[in-house]
Parts: sequence; C-alpha cells; structure tokens
Amino acid sequence: MGLNKSGSINRRSRSFSLRRLLLGDPLASAQIIHEKLTKAKALAVFSSDALSSVAYATEEILFVLAASSIYALNLSIPIALAIAVLLLIVGFSYHQTIHAYPEGGGAYIVAKDNLGPVFALVAGASLQIDYTLTVAVSISAGVAAITSWLPFLLPYRAIIAVITVLLITLINLRGVRESASIFSVPTYLFIAGMLSLIGYGLIRWLFVGELPQVHITQPIHADLTVQGITIFFVLRAFSAGCTALTGIEAISDGIPAFRPPAADNAGKTLLTMVAILTIMFLGITLLAHGIGAAPSQSETVLSQIGRALFGRGPLYVAVQIATALILLLAANTAFSDFPRLSFFMARDSYMPRQMGNLGDRLVYSNGIIFLGVLASILIFIFNGETHGLLPLYAVGVFISFTLSQLGMVRRWLRLRLPGWRGHALINAIGGLATLVVFLIIASTRFLSGAWIVVMLIPLFVLVFLRIHLHYQQVATQLSLERYGTLHRMRHPRVIMPIGGVHRGVLKALEFARSLSPDVTAVYVETSEEEGKKVRRKWERWGDGVRLVILPSPYRSIISPLLDFLSQIEAQRQPHDIITVVLPQFVTARWWENLLHNQDAWLIRLALLFRRGYIVIDVPYHLAD
Amino acid sequence: MGLNKSGSINRRSRSFSLRRLLLGDPLASAQIIHEKLTKAKALAVFSSDALSSVAYATEEILFVLAASSIYALNLSIPIALAIAVLLLIVGFSYHQTIHAYPEGGGAYIVAKDNLGPVFALVAGASLQIDYTLTVAVSISAGVAAITSWLPFLLPYRAIIAVITVLLITLINLRGVRESASIFSVPTYLFIAGMLSLIGYGLIRWLFVGELPQVHITQPIHADLTVQGITIFFVLRAFSAGCTALTGIEAISDGIPAFRPPAADNAGKTLLTMVAILTIMFLGITLLAHGIGAAPSQSETVLSQIGRALFGRGPLYVAVQIATALILLLAANTAFSDFPRLSFFMARDSYMPRQMGNLGDRLVYSNGIIFLGVLASILIFIFNGETHGLLPLYAVGVFISFTLSQLGMVRRWLRLRLPGWRGHALINAIGGLATLVVFLIIASTRFLSGAWIVVMLIPLFVLVFLRIHLHYQQVATQLSLERYGTLHRMRHPRVIMPIGGVHRGVLKALEFARSLSPDVTAVYVETSEEEGKKVRRKWERWGDGVRLVILPSPYRSIISPLLDFLSQIEAQRQPHDIITVVLPQFVTARWWENLLHNQDAWLIRLALLFRRGYIVIDVPYHLAD
Repeated sequence: MGLNKSGSINRRSRSFSLRRLLLGDPLASAQIIHEKLTKAKALAVFSSDALSSVAYATEEILFVLAASSIYALNLSIPIALAIAVLLLIVGFSYHQTIHAYPEGGGAYIVAKDNLGPVFALVAGASLQIDYTLTVAVSISAGVAAITSWLPFLLPYRAIIAVITVLLITLINLRGVRESASIFSVPTYLFIAGMLSLIGYGLIRWLFVGELPQVHITQPIHADLTVQGITIFFVLRAFSAGCTALTGIEAISDGIPAFRPPAADNAGKTLLTMVAILTIMFLGITLLAHGIGAAPSQSETVLSQIGRALFGRGPLYVAVQIATALILLLAANTAFSDFPRLSFFMARDSYMPRQMGNLGDRLVYSNGIIFLGVLASILIFIFNGETHGLLPLYAVGVFISFTLSQLGMVRRWLRLRLPGWRGHALINAIGGLATLVVFLIIASTRFLSGAWIVVMLIPLFVLVFLRIHLHYQQVATQLSLERYGTLHRMRHPRVIMPIGGVHRGVLKALEFARSLSPDVTAVYVETSEEEGKKVRRKWERWGDGVRLVILPSPYRSIISPLLDFLSQIEAQRQPHDIITVVLPQFVTARWWENLLHNQDAWLIRLALLFRRGYIVIDVPYHLAD
Repeated sequence: MGLNKSGSINRRSRSFSLRRLLLGDPLASAQIIHEKLTKAKALAVFSSDALSSVAYATEEILFVLAASSIYALNLSIPIALAIAVLLLIVGFSYHQTIHAYPEGGGAYIVAKDNLGPVFALVAGASLQIDYTLTVAVSISAGVAAITSWLPFLLPYRAIIAVITVLLITLINLRGVRESASIFSVPTYLFIAGMLSLIGYGLIRWLFVGELPQVHITQPIHADLTVQGITIFFVLRAFSAGCTALTGIEAISDGIPAFRPPAADNAGKTLLTMVAILTIMFLGITLLAHGIGAAPSQSETVLSQIGRALFGRGPLYVAVQIATALILLLAANTAFSDFPRLSFFMARDSYMPRQMGNLGDRLVYSNGIIFLGVLASILIFIFNGETHGLLPLYAVGVFISFTLSQLGMVRRWLRLRLPGWRGHALINAIGGLATLVVFLIIASTRFLSGAWIVVMLIPLFVLVFLRIHLHYQQVATQLSLERYGTLHRMRHPRVIMPIGGVHRGVLKALEFARSLSPDVTAVYVETSEEEGKKVRRKWERWGDGVRLVILPSPYRSIISPLLDFLSQIEAQRQPHDIITVVLPQFVTARWWENLLHNQDAWLIRLALLFRRGYIVIDVPYHLAD
C-alpha cells in the first residue's frame, strides 16, 4: 500500500524529482500547526506591502503635481500630512478588526458577517484586484529601483519583472514558513536603510540648513495638459499619494498565520507597522522636497534622494537593493493573502473549489499559480511601468477598507459589547474617511485607469454569483433526499461496433460477455466484399453472438452506426442504459496511433452528450 | 434506419450544411464508374502540369545563363534543343509504360513490379516530393504571371498563393469530374494563346527580319558570382531547363481515370501532349532570344514576350490570365496523382491506412488535404518565389523517370513479349538518358537546393519502411491463427473510486452492480472529518457494497488510489481485468466543468498505459 510515511515519500520523490527539487518534499497534513510565524517574521511577511509603498507613493504625488508647475511641488508636504492622518485613522480602525476577528478578518469576511453576501463579494472582488495589482506594482517598482541604479537594464524591465514574478510564485509554492525565513532579513535592512537615510538627511538639513540639490536628467510631465492649481488637481495628487495606504490591511487578513495568541500579536504588529510607515512616508516626502526631487523617466525619486545624500557609493547601492528586495516581499504578501481569500470564497462556493485545495506543501497551490499568471499578464500589458498601474491600484483598496470598517460599525451596533460606542465611533470615522477617499480617487483618477477597476468589480461579482448558483444547482441535483433505495438494474444492453474480426475484437468480445449476456456486434459495411469476409469470420469466431451488418453506401462509418443506435434507443425502457463497447488499439508508440483510424474516438465524441449511453474503451495493447 | 438513399441524404445535409455547400452531396460507392474522363478532358487534367512548365523552364535557363554574361544567353537555343530531344525520348518511353500497365503505371508501381520494394519506395518518395513541389511551383509561377501584369500585387504573392492552394484543395475535395469540367476551358485557352503568340512571333520574325526588343526594368543576376562559360555552367543551365519535363509522367499514373479503352486513350493523349509541349517550349525559347528577354525580379520572361509582341493590350492580358489558369490546373494534376499514389502505397502498408479511404465524394480526401497543407507550408517557407523552389523540383522527377524506365527494361527482359528487343531498347535509352540527367541535376544544382531532396528521399523511405513494419507487427499480433476458442471470463472485478456520496455516485453504483456482483467502492480520505461523513452516508446508501477508505496524509487523491490498485493487481489471476468505474459529472455548459475537480480525468490518464485495466466513465448529466 505504501501508506507508511517513508515508503510513500520515496515512491513520490522518484517520480516527481524536478518538482521536489523546486518545491521540496511533501508535508503531511499533521504538520500544518508548525507553519506559524513569530511577530518579527510576520512583520517581514505582512508589513512589506505597506512599508514598501513609500517607494512609489511620494513619487506618485510629485508625478501629478509636476503636471501643473514646478511651484505646485511644494504642495507635497501638506498632502503627505493629510495622508499620514488618514493612515493613523485606518490603522486604529483595523486594530479593532483584528481583535474582533481573530480567525482572520479580511474585508470579505467582515462584510459577509455584517453586510451580507453582495457587499462581501464586492469586497472580495476589490481585494483580489488589489492583490493582483500589489504583485504587478511592487515588482515593477522593485525593478525600477534596480534600473535607477543600473540604467542599461531599463529596456528589459518588463521581462525582468515577469521572471521575478515566476520566481516568487515558485518560492510560495514551497510554503510560507520558508519564505518568511528567506525574506526576514531584507525587510529589516530596508527599514534600517530608510531610517538611516531619513535620519541623516533631517539632521543634516537641521544643522547645515540646506540639502544638496539633485540634478534630474529626464524629468517627466504627466500625460495631462499643463493646468492651474485647482481643488480637483490637489485632490488628484492626494489620491495618488493614497497608494501609501495599500497593504495596511494585510495583517488583519492573515491573523491565523501568527503564533498564538494570534490576535494580540497581530494587533501589536499592525500598530508597529503603522508607526514605521508614517515616519518613513513623511520623512521621504520631506527629503524629496528638500533635495528638489522631481519624477523622471529613468530614475525613481527614492533613488534621487539616496544619490543626493549618499552619492553613488555603496550606501546608495545598499538602499536601492534593499528597496528592490522589500518590494519583492510586498509582492510576496499578496501570495499569502490572495490564495487565502480564494480559499474563503471557494469554501463559500463563490470561486472554483480547486482554489480551496491544500497542495502537498500545505499551501493553496492553485491560488498561488493563478495569481502569478494574472500578475504576469498585467505587467506584460503595462510594460512594467509603475505609473500606468498605480491609478488602478488604490481604488479597490479603498472599497475594501470602507466595507470592512462599515461592517465593523454594524457589528458594534448589533452586538453591543462593552465599550461599543467608542469602538463604533473609531470604525465609523475610519469607514467614512475611506469612503470619501474612495470617491475622491474614483473621480479624480477615473480616466487614468480607475475606470477599469470600477468596471471589473461588478463583473467579478456577477461571476462569483454565477459560480455560486452552479454549485447550488449541483448540490440540489445530487442531494440524496427522496432518493429511495438503490435501483437494481438488469444486465446492460451491450452494443459492440467492430471494424473487422481479429484478436483485439475477440478480447473485447470476451469482456463484453463478462458484463452482460445481451451483446450485439455491429459492423458497418463500406464494401460488400469486406462485409462477406467479416460475416464468414464471425461465424467461425463469434461464438454465437449476434452480428448486425449495416450497409453504408456513402462509406461513412459513424452515421449508419448512430442511426442504428437511435433505433435501439427508441425501443428501450426508460432508465435503460445502452453500453457501447469499443475495441481499441493502444500502440506501443504514440505516433503509431496515427496509423490507425480514429473511428472509436469519433464514436465516443458523437455519444458524449447523448444521455443514457455509457461508452467503454477496451484497450488492446500492441507489443513493441 | 435511414438507409434508403433520400432519407439518408436529408439527414446528413441538415447536419453538415456548410460542408455540403462547399463539397456537394455525398456520392454513393455505386456511382464510381461515372467518374471517368474523355480524352479531351483528360488532356486538360493531366497535361496541364507538363504544358505549363513552359511558363518557367525557359526563364530558368536564362536565369542561370544571365549569371555569367549577356552573351551566354545565346546558349539557350542549343540547350532547349537538347531538352526537346530528351522530351521525345522520355515521351516514347512512357508511351510503352502506359500499354504495359493499363491499370496505372506510375513509377512506384512499375518499380515495385520489376525492381522490388526498396526501389519502389525510392520512386514513391521522389514522386510525393515531386507532386508537392508541383503544387508549390505551379501556384507560385501562376501568381508570378498575375503579378507581372499587376505589379502592385507583388508584395502579397505568398499569401495569394496560399489562398489559391486552399481553393484548389476544396475543389478537389468535391471530386475529379467536376474539376475537369471547370478546368477544361483554360487549358485549351492556354494552348491557343501560346500557339498564337509563337505563330505570330515566328511569322513576324520571318517576314520582318527582327522582333521588337523588350525593355527590362529590374533584370536580376543569380546568387552566384559572375563566372566564365564552363561545361559545368552549361550543364547547370541545362538542368534548370529540365524542369520542362516535369509532369510528363502524370498520364501514366492516372490511366484508370480515362474512359475505356483507357490505355489506348491515355497513350494517344500522351503523344499529343509531348508534341504540343515540344513546340511550345522551343517556340518560347526562340522568341525569348528574339526579343532579348532576360529574367527580372518583377516580370516573367513569358510576360516580356507577350508584352513585346502584343503590347499591354487585351491580348497580352489574355495570355497572362491563361498562363495563370493553366498553372492552377498543373497544381490540380498533383491533387489527382498524389492521393492516388498515396492510396497505392497505403494499400501496400507503406503509408497510413487513412490515405486509402475514399471520402464521401469518391475522392481520397485525406491525401488531398495532406497535399494542400504540405504545399502551403512550402510556399510559406520560400515566400512564393519560383526561383527558390525550382532547384528542388527536377531532382525527384528524374529519379522517378529513371526507376520507371529501368523497371520497364527489366520487365521486357523478364517477359520476352513479342517485339521485346525493340521495346527494351527504347526504355533503356530513356532510362539511361534520364539517369544521366538526374546525375547532372543533382551535381550542378546540389547547393542551390537539390540537397534537400537528396536528403529527404532516404528519410521518406525509412519512414515508409517503419510504417510497413508496424502494420506487419499489428497483423501478426491480431492474427486469429492458433487463437483457440473464446475465453469465458467470470464477472469483472469492479473498483469504483468515489469523492463523496451523492446521486451521481449512486447512479454509477447501480451501473457497476449491473456489470458484476464484485464491486468495491474506494474513498481517499484527505481529512478525517470528511472520511467519517462519507462512511456514515455509505452505511445508509451503499446497499451493502464494500467501501475501502484510504488515508492520504499528503492530500493527494491519485497516489493512494494507484497504490491500492497495485495491491489488487498483485493478487489477481493472469488474464483478470480490473474494471475501474468512474462516476463523472457532465455539466450543461462547458465552463462549468472547470468548477469541478479533474480527478476522474487524472485517474484515467494514470491508467492509460497500464495493462489489464478497463476504465469506464459513468456520466451523470447535470441539468441546466
């Protein structure tokens, strides 16, 4: 049986050696408990998405402001402060969610619990789009960090990004604990690098009074015509900066991956993360202002800051590499969360069930692969350009924020737990703030790409509902209620089309007769001469089994046979099943199969959608 | 039963209406006798290949000569005369073949009869390559006739050529008699056009003393460096001109398509054809010389002659169109001969049997489709350029000429029929002449492309022999000699893997029990909880059938099942068959199938090459 552990593993590792090399040995279900993360590792895995957004959020604000005039760039500071306030609001709001949903309180689950299935699906769709964009944006931005340092790689950014997605997919198919071990170091390297940069920059600014100014080689202007500083324009820049908040919800969705007590650990990790994020975002925006950074075709704003403060030396290179690495980690967050969300939705029958299958490395392999493919396609379409992808990004995020927090408000009002008024107020402020921000983003960035997400979300919801309907219908049709007892069928009626009389046919005949005493062989006669030969041979070898010969003046094999079967169909009792036994060669080499006619296959195809038929191939294995 | 003729046709025409529209109604086998050709129609179908070669043979001679110097062009006249002599020799030699093989005496059959199977296969391979090239060359040259007239079409020649091949393929799938009716007119139009052109030209030359000189816009030089007039060089030009002989064998291969007395009619048609061909080839070469024609990138030599003599008026256009049309017909010859040769070779088990199937329009549909595809690929590779294809062309032709005629010599020596000495001499002269020409072509055109054919022929022969071996092995293995009587098998052992307990599974169980009293259901348990549920439900619904539960700590469905089957395999008697019944959903819409796991399909795949298994899908049709 090979069910003892070591025997089974040996057997498998022989047959799947490449797979094992890439993915590691299979893990038993019982090992699942060990795959839990410490706070430090969890910060590495779940915070990287949020923290890494400082690599593009400031730049995106400047990107919008630069379209107006060089003076507009000064607006980046007040805008960043507004975003920092929003960050704190959302952070505290989510802190409450974590404690209310220690099993994992992603927007989908919170909305399902409190707002009903349709809002849950809207949240689910938003999150799925969000996760896919997290991968595409983070990898593109990570590649941009590298191409800022090594500009000769710029033309290859899309292909580099796609290959990177592939590698991350593979790492995730190996399982989450190992990826946490691999990825812990770079997160802390990035945090250390950013804090050093900001600390050094601010101290120098404070003491020297000014910062070295950066020289930009290829400054860009956005695709809009130059315009005055209007409210709409400021809001657009604000929307662009809101990409800093992406990923802040990751922890609340991944609580079960924390070591117990999971909720406490997750809550603390969340607040730590928000603090670090706020400091880094404000610091970088300040420094960008200080050195006179401007968005450029070939160099990120972060690279400009590093270059202005550290020169092109090893410190600068270290910052660029750390930035690229944390962006890889950010993409990795999505590879934890997307499959987990898909698992929840598949459990509720809104996504294909296969999304809920744990692979043999205890990860949801199908979700991981699906995400990898989707993100690669997105990168390919947008040619690995961050500015193209970012307008799509924050829309879905803020929909899920809003639904999650309004769902929490509803929950407090419903359960009225101790202190519910204060809790409800915090979530209400969070929910209203993110709702307003969503409306701002959707309206000011609509034409830049937000429309795509606004259109996709209802489409996704429809697909989810359709899948749900299918599973419901199947469940009804398969239900055993009112089934009664098992119907005792009499012997099946067996029809066996033959193309001649030889060993293969006689083997099939032997099998057919073991199934039922009611066997009829059928031969389609395309030439009278051949027909006579078959009849003669059947008399000698057919052992008394009935043979029907169907003339075929037009030399078709299939149509006379189907006509004959229709005739039998007309005679049968309801519930009777017609069993068609097809003698079939299995050649020793695949190409040899091309040397034989494919009639058996055509017959099977023709009967595929006819009810009341069962088609049995009886293979005759030809020797080498 | 729908076996009465009209009923059957109605039934079919409903289901295959597009097919019927393109191909016509099916023809009954009994109608085959009517599909025979008169001499006049046969000339149209079978001579077009040979006659149309005047459209490129002269040009190809000039193409080679032009590489040397403008004076070398004068050599075209003696070279053409040598080729004319060769033409007459080969013509008389084949005339004897026709009378000796009234059933159709293609090189394959003559070689098989007299030289043995290996030479026959060499001839067969040569002919198949030759026919494929006939299509590619003729269509390319036909398109060149059109682009000479309408130069703006030049960039699209490859795509025009491929579409044309497609159309000819369709016409041939309709059947040969109708294509003869369609194509009779243009052959005679071409002959009339050419003879008028030549007659008018020669008379004018005779009386006026000189011809108008043509002005060439884009004369070309071949890809060789300019060289002196050496023997090798003259022989190369001669080889190029030998493409005039291509197609001369078509009649001997197609005698059964003639009205009786077939051999007489075919022989007369052959001699008529050789006479017309010789006159046209010599005439065109003379006129080309007279008007100072030279090969050009954008205009054929024939077009230059027409333009010089007729101007750009309607007569010129008529000649160009007639040329294009007869080249279409030439391609069509191959569509008669290639499938017929494939039929002969399939009958001898050297090609896949399907090549021998008469389609419902009484043509060998598979051969026709195969040729159409091959020729399209060739045209695509050579971008529809005649000069690229021609060096490959004559090699195979002359191999088949040689084998056919040497085979005839062997036949005369063997049978010693009245007058055998004279007959043998004629064939010997023919055979030796074509052997020498083959050697000249292969050596002087080797690097220009002849090497491809020289390499392909042995490869083809190996494939034919391998196919033959396979069919022989199959015949031995299927032979009923020493089979004894039918083995009476006891009830099969039925194993039914289940994924749960529901209506679909119970339906399959009902069927399984109708096959055998020995049924075992198998459930692979990936979670203990689910396992318990299945066990409980089975107790209620399983009607006493044994249920085996296989634990799967690594969550794989397939491996524990295969291990279990191996265990059963080890216990069984020799000749016992393990029957695996797989309950399977058939969803109402194809995409719904994606929502269910594909385990049944994976199990079937895993058992595909294991002997002693029969796998039965029991469909459960889900309602809409």
